[in-house]
Amino acid sequence: MRGTILYGPRDVRFEEREIPKIINPTDAIIRISATCVCGSDLWPYRGINPVAQPTRMGHEYCGIVEEVGSAVKSIKPGQFVIGSFFASDNTCPNCQIGYQSSCQNRELVNTAQASVLRVPLADGTLVATPDVPSDGLIPSLLTLSDVMGTGWFAADAANVKPGSTVAVVGDGAVGLLGVLSAKQMGAERIIAMSRHNSRQKLAREFGATDIVTERGDQGVARIQELTNGIGADSVLECVGTQESMMQAISSTRPGGYVGYVGVPHGVELNGEQLFYAHVHLHGGPAPVRRYLPELIDLVWNRKINPGKVFDLILPLDQVAEGYRAMDERRAIKTLLRP
Amino acid sequence: MRGTILYGPRDVRFEEREIPKIINPTDAIIRISATCVCGSDLWPYRGINPVAQPTRMGHEYCGIVEEVGSAVKSIKPGQFVIGSFFASDNTCPNCQIGYQSSCQNRELVNTAQASVLRVPLADGTLVATPDVPSDGLIPSLLTLSDVMGTGWFAADAANVKPGSTVAVVGDGAVGLLGVLSAKQMGAERIIAMSRHNSRQKLAREFGATDIVTERGDQGVARIQELTNGIGADSVLECVGTQESMMQAISSTRPGGYVGYVGVPHGVELNGEQLFYAHVHLHGGPAPVRRYLPELIDLVWNRKINPGKVFDLILPLDQVAEGYRAMDERRAIKTLLRP
Repeated sequence: MRGTILYGPRDVRFEEREIPKIINPTDAIIRISATCVCGSDLWPYRGINPVAQPTRMGHEYCGIVEEVGSAVKSIKPGQFVIGSFFASDNTCPNCQIGYQSSCQNRELVNTAQASVLRVPLADGTLVATPDVPSDGLIPSLLTLSDVMGTGWFAADAANVKPGSTVAVVGDGAVGLLGVLSAKQMGAERIIAMSRHNSRQKLAREFGATDIVTERGDQGVARIQELTNGIGADSVLECVGTQESMMQAISSTRPGGYVGYVGVPHGVELNGEQLFYAHVHLHGGPAPVRRYLPELIDLVWNRKINPGKVFDLILPLDQVAEGYRAMDERRAIKTLLRP
Repeated sequence: MRGTILYGPRDVRFEEREIPKIINPTDAIIRISATCVCGSDLWPYRGINPVAQPTRMGHEYCGIVEEVGSAVKSIKPGQFVIGSFFASDNTCPNCQIGYQSSCQNRELVNTAQASVLRVPLADGTLVATPDVPSDGLIPSLLTLSDVMGTGWFAADAANVKPGSTVAVVGDGAVGLLGVLSAKQMGAERIIAMSRHNSRQKLAREFGATDIVTERGDQGVARIQELTNGIGADSVLECVGTQESMMQAISSTRPGGYVGYVGVPHGVELNGEQLFYAHVHLHGGPAPVRRYLPELIDLVWNRKINPGKVFDLILPLDQVAEGYRAMDERRAIKTLLRP
C-alpha cells in the first residue's frame, strides 16, 4: 500500500508502507474511497508548524469497511462509512453532551491520505450511509469528515438562527461551508469576507448575500456599515490568525456570537477588549461526530452539496501537486482518489 | 450637599459640592437612600487604575425620585427607584436584545457616593419598586444596582440551569452573589472557591455545597477531582486577573460555560489554549437593567436576600473608612447611608 508522508516544508511524498491491520478489538480497517488535503495540513507543509520527523498525513476520509475488530458491534464490513479526524468512544461524559472531539479517549486519525486506513474506536467514530453511495455523492460525503462539519460547528457555535445576520471571516473551504451552513440554518443575510473572485462566486452559490473585500479595521468598518452600526448577530471565524480573530470579534454586535474554528496560530486575546466587546465566544475542534447523522441525511437527500468546494480532483499518487495547488491558492481544496 | 472624591491612592474624601440639577430633559434627580463601595472602586483606590485628577466616586444607588426632566414619562417624583451603573435608553438595538450596558447612548453613572444624584436617561435606566420599601429591604434592593445584577449575569452567562454543577471563582461580594444566583437558578452543586472563613460561611448560607480553598493549578485539580475529572458545567469568574480567568477556563468541562464579570486587569488569553478548552465564554459589564424587574420581584417577595453581603454599614460621611475596611479585607462590602 502507498500513503502520504511529509518530510519537511513543501516536501510531500507518496510512498510504499505497510498495510494497516487491526490492533485493538475496537478498530476498523477501511478502504478509502476519497480523501483530501485540509487547510490545516498547510501549517506543517509551510513549515509554520515544525515537522520533526517524516509524518504520515491526512485526517479526512470516507470509504468501505474491510474488516472490524472483535469488539465492534455497529459497523460491518461492506458498509460505506464516514468518520471524524478525532476518533471517539461516543459514550464518555464529553461525548454524551456532544463534544466528541474532546472525548476522554479520543485518538487523532492522521494517516488518511492513503489507500487503506485503520480507524480506532470504530463504533463511536464511524457512521454508515444508508447504502453504498453513487460516485457523484462521494465528494459531498467526504466533506462531512471535517471541513463541512467544521463549517457547521462554526455556524452552530455562532448561534445562527432563522433570520440571523451572519458574517464569515475566511474564504477557505471551511469559510465557504460556513456560508452554506448559515444558509441551511436559515440566516437571512450572509456577509462573506473574501477578496478572491472564484471564492466569492462559490460563496454566492452557497448563499452569501453580500461580499466584503476589505480586511482588518476596514473590513470591520464595512460590516458595521452594512449592519446599521450594530454588527452582525453571528460571526464565523474560519482562519485562526490574530487579525482574523479580532476582525471577527469586532464585527459582532454586543450580545452576539463568535464561532471560531480556525486553529489559532499566535492568537492572544486581550481580556479588557473582549470584556467590553460583550460577545459570546465558542469554538475549538469541531465535534464532527455529533453532526454526522444529520449532515449525511442532508447530503443523501440532495439538500446540500458541500462537495462543490473541491475544485481540484487528483489521483492520490499526485498528492504532492494537490498540496502545491492549495499552497499557491490555485485550488480551494483538493480531493484525492486512490 | 457632600459627596465622595478620590484624590489619589488611598485618599478618599467626603466634601462639599454643588447639588446636581436636571441638565437634560431625560434626567432624573434622586435622593440617595443607600449607596456602597464596589470591588471595582478598589482598582483606582489602590492606584492600579491611575487617578489623574480628583474623581467623584460611586455607581451603586437607590433612592427617592425628587425631580424629573420634561421628557421623562415613566418615572415620577416620590417613587423609590433603582438603576444601573450604566444609564441606558432601553430602546436602541443593543438594549432591545438585553445588552443595556452596551446601549448606543449609554452614560456611566459615577457620582453616586453622595446624598443626591443625577441619573441620565431616567426612563430607560431606573426601575421603580412597587412601593416605598421598608428600611429592612433597602440593602437587598441596593445590591440590584450592580453587585447582585453582576453575580446574576455571571450565572446567566455561564448558562446555569436546574441540576447544573457550578464553580465560582472569587469570594468577593460578586462571587458570593454568583453563588446565590446559581442557587436561585436551580444549580444542584455549587463549589465556592474561597480561603476566608467569613466568606465561606456566607457562601454556604447562599447555597454553596462545597468549598475549595486551593487556588491556581491546585484549585483546578480540586475542581476536577470533585467532578469526576470532567470539570464543572458552569464556572463564574468574578475576579478579573490572569490567574482567576485561567482557573475558571480550566475548571470548566469541554462544552461547558464560563461567565466572566471581573473587570479584566492584565488578562491575555492564549488562542490555542482556549480553542482546545472547548468552552463557551461570555461576559462583560452586566446588563443590570435587563434583570432589574425580575430581581426586584425576588427581593420584594423575600425569595432572596442579597443584602447579606453588606457586613459593614456606615454613615456616608465615613466613606473613607468604608474603602479602607474593604481594601484591608476587614469587610466584604460596605453600605453607606446618607
